Amino acid sequence: MSPALVRGKFSESSVRRLSSYHRVLDDLARQDTEVISSNQLAVLAGTNPAQIRKDLSYFGTFGKRGSGYPVRDLRESIRAILGLNRSWRTVLAGAGNLGHALFSYKEFARYGFEIVGVFDVDPEKVGKIWDGVTISPLSSCAEVITEKQVELALVVTPAAAAQAVVDELCRAGIRGILNFAPRKVEAPPEVVLRNVNITVELEGLTFALQRGIC
Amino acid sequence: MSPALVRGKFSESSVRRLSSYHRVLDDLARQDTEVISSNQLAVLAGTNPAQIRKDLSYFGTFGKRGSGYPVRDLRESIRAILGLNRSWRTVLAGAGNLGHALFSYKEFARYGFEIVGVFDVDPEKVGKIWDGVTISPLSSCAEVITEKQVELALVVTPAAAAQAVVDELCRAGIRGILNFAPRKVEAPPEVVLRNVNITVELEGLTFALQRGIC
Repeated sequence: MSPALVRGKFSESSVRRLSSYHRVLDDLARQDTEVISSNQLAVLAGTNPAQIRKDLSYFGTFGKRGSGYPVRDLRESIRAILGLNRSWRTVLAGAGNLGHALFSYKEFARYGFEIVGVFDVDPEKVGKIWDGVTISPLSSCAEVITEKQVELALVVTPAAAAQAVVDELCRAGIRGILNFAPRKVEAPPEVVLRNVNITVELEGLTFALQRGIC
Repeated sequence: MSPALVRGKFSESSVRRLSSYHRVLDDLARQDTEVISSNQLAVLAGTNPAQIRKDLSYFGTFGKRGSGYPVRDLRESIRAILGLNRSWRTVLAGAGNLGHALFSYKEFARYGFEIVGVFDVDPEKVGKIWDGVTISPLSSCAEVITEKQVELALVVTPAAAAQAVVDELCRAGIRGILNFAPRKVEAPPEVVLRNVNITVELEGLTFALQRGIC
């Protein structure tokens, strides 16, 4: 068992840093940069070279001391570690404004997240078509998830509905959930769940402004 | 100078935890809970009592050992630390789907973020009215920011436009920016900037699913 498989050993912030290395390397590869020093990578990703070495050391040996990292190889390795070297069938629960914004968010497709179903409970929304995907009643989610072999769900319902929707998705066999509803929800241990709270980011700003830290 | 004022000393993840304590305490206060033990608070916020004590110790002494935390008092203290005990005039740069979703996001208003202006460069969008707020041309942002004493901006433009828009907002005197565009942008040192990347959250999910960590 690699150290990264030990629960809690590889923290959420380490995964965030891996995402950030991946994004920087992806940009560099598009600009045809072949090699990057650990110093440069650290500056672009907003960290330091020792942290990069530590984060990567969980997964193997990358680059040679003194000769920098090969951009494309490292990008592919991190892509595989993050599970981005494959596509993930995803559904959206909630066809409101935020649902539509996420549905239209082109970065998702670029990173392999394919939205194959949209659910809502509102009869006025059910039956509408978003770019080829028909909005279905939430009660049909089990069928869609099974038929289309869906693994992930984005929950963008109002706060009051979120837990019931998460429960329904879990019963339907979903493997991972990203909850955008402004309420912390829970899922059984076999389902991976992350709560996203957009105001948390704004609070990071106001905290810094309040304290005079830029 | 309190330790929290030393740059880097109080990490981004500590601020995230403060946000989370605030949210839990806010829910408890609404349910008229008067006192909470550090153990219970830790469970609800997904951390441990020692971490809570450590995070709070930067800002003073809260609660009495053995008698738990007074819910409303602690909520008010954290609210003040996070800068949530006042309102923040905010503008939105980008009137697309995500912009509209953020504009309609009721949690923002609840936490004191008041969206008083919306900008876009698209002549088809300029002049439209969203819930009483007229979409203005981006070129008018300096006037609006000065006139309405705006401090914060949410940037929700396409990736290619983000840096130019951030530059314009900074010239107009904005104090803090939350960038949702899928490109890392930069701002002068006197402006507080956070880049939000929604795919990072999804990558946290796929990383865990890939590795079998729930």
